[in-house]
Amino acid sequence: MKPKEEMVVVGSVALDTVETVHGKRREALGGAAVYCSLASRYFARPMMIGVVGTDFPKRYLTLVRRTGIDTEGVQQVAGESFRWAGKYSPDGNVAHTLETRLGVFSEFKPRVPDSYRSAKVLFLANIDPELQFHVLTRMNGALSGGDTMNFWISQKRAHLLKVLRRLHLMFLNDQEARMLTGEHNLIKAARGLLRMGPRAAVVKKGEHGSMICTDSSFRFCPPHPVQVVKDPTGAGDSYAGAFMGYLAQKKIRPDRLTPDLLACASAYGSVVSSFTVQSFGVGGLLSMKWPLILQRLKTLRRLVHLPSK
Amino acid sequence: MKPKEEMVVVGSVALDTVETVHGKRREALGGAAVYCSLASRYFARPMMIGVVGTDFPKRYLTLVRRTGIDTEGVQQVAGESFRWAGKYSPDGNVAHTLETRLGVFSEFKPRVPDSYRSAKVLFLANIDPELQFHVLTRMNGALSGGDTMNFWISQKRAHLLKVLRRLHLMFLNDQEARMLTGEHNLIKAARGLLRMGPRAAVVKKGEHGSMICTDSSFRFCPPHPVQVVKDPTGAGDSYAGAFMGYLAQKKIRPDRLTPDLLACASAYGSVVSSFTVQSFGVGGLLSMKWPLILQRLKTLRRLVHLPSK
Repeated sequence: MKPKEEMVVVGSVALDTVETVHGKRREALGGAAVYCSLASRYFARPMMIGVVGTDFPKRYLTLVRRTGIDTEGVQQVAGESFRWAGKYSPDGNVAHTLETRLGVFSEFKPRVPDSYRSAKVLFLANIDPELQFHVLTRMNGALSGGDTMNFWISQKRAHLLKVLRRLHLMFLNDQEARMLTGEHNLIKAARGLLRMGPRAAVVKKGEHGSMICTDSSFRFCPPHPVQVVKDPTGAGDSYAGAFMGYLAQKKIRPDRLTPDLLACASAYGSVVSSFTVQSFGVGGLLSMKWPLILQRLKTLRRLVHLPSK
Repeated sequence: MKPKEEMVVVGSVALDTVETVHGKRREALGGAAVYCSLASRYFARPMMIGVVGTDFPKRYLTLVRRTGIDTEGVQQVAGESFRWAGKYSPDGNVAHTLETRLGVFSEFKPRVPDSYRSAKVLFLANIDPELQFHVLTRMNGALSGGDTMNFWISQKRAHLLKVLRRLHLMFLNDQEARMLTGEHNLIKAARGLLRMGPRAAVVKKGEHGSMICTDSSFRFCPPHPVQVVKDPTGAGDSYAGAFMGYLAQKKIRPDRLTPDLLACASAYGSVVSSFTVQSFGVGGLLSMKWPLILQRLKTLRRLVHLPSK
């Protein structure tokens, strides 16, 4: 097997307390960087940048490393780890944040190890756009994707726009896309995103799938159908992780983001995130196997098959 | 050209007053039976069953007949026509009903002309399920589809279930599917619908497209992308009209509702309803031309194209 392409992921590493109609988990391994890295590992070699406190369970770090994720970029500093607690509505579509304790994450200064700089792909998960920009400038021309959230759109818009001007792909959920562009219609919102810089705008619509827009194309990717959504946490990060990982695997240059490639990348994103939501926390991503991924990809293909007559 | 198959449509014939961010229209031609019949006319020969008052503008009936719709089943009785007034949210996703004046529609007793009984396809648009059942029993074994609304689900559930046991296809929007089955998850809701009788459950999700479920299959149909939704009124009825019209055109027997056929039917539904929402009232359906339908079908196909590598 050929060595996998390197993919740097920066974002939160967290302890999640999650409650859904299917149960509750306390202080489980979570965070955008973790979900994204685990989701990408079948396609690329993930290299994680993040921060944890001294209270972070050693077994979690060991677990992450055992899956093949490089953690040289994960700093362990004095203080409490980032904690998030949330509860989901019965249909799993709405998360109510019960508690956010930033801990060491509030003073996070991402450090990009020298060995990471030449990685061909970079994903900036949802963190302060100033930090995203910092990481972006430290990399040597990687294909770059990014995500953000409502807080940064309203509080650090100028910094976010600066990041967007240099990003190749932007991932947002439908509400964030509407908020950032001021457009209600999602197609207009996606086109509005493109005018801010990226070559591709990816709008994530949860149970309704995703749409991928470039200057000259528009694609629609269904979700892989899941009847029992146990825990939606990390679905979006898993989608982006597999999406970017696929682009890494295919060694895609920023000027070669064709509609067909993006369609394939999004299909893997849909499939991988379906494993995420079927279990609590990162359980689904850990037990996911390559043959199962291919099997679900086949299902996804059949789902949108439109015969020619 | 071969003569088109006959398709009976029963439902409201209305005067709609609609306001969206793009403008306002007063007492325009509307109603589920009208949208559905107009949407189906490129595929089938629509035969409409409904009721209007003596105040119903003659030019509207003339217009409907000129498009090739049979109106023998439309009664004109003393009293006021059914009027609906609504206002849409800026994104066009939510309708606020400002006024509903049932008029002659409140005493509607559908009459099925003898010439309609042998039609091969029947669509029961949203009316009282008791009336739907009456029409259903008057037909000689047509392939039958139906729709309903939240009011009947809560107020006439038993009658609705009686209809469902005899229907071949049921069309519902996502909220109605959840309400009728008590399932939050849309896949479970669709499967729940199937257990109530129909061979196919069609869940309409507005701007997110639709999903079509049978006992052994599951398909996902994207919406045809529309950047400017001028007036969403009638989108669901147009979708169902083109869907059932396509099945009529293909002379599909109830036991031959294959996943591929249903996928094609839903694709035409998406395409035709995209014309509906781009204009006020029935304007989009009236100006729609066959080559444009085929062009949009091609776009829809490309939208979900997933290359094999």
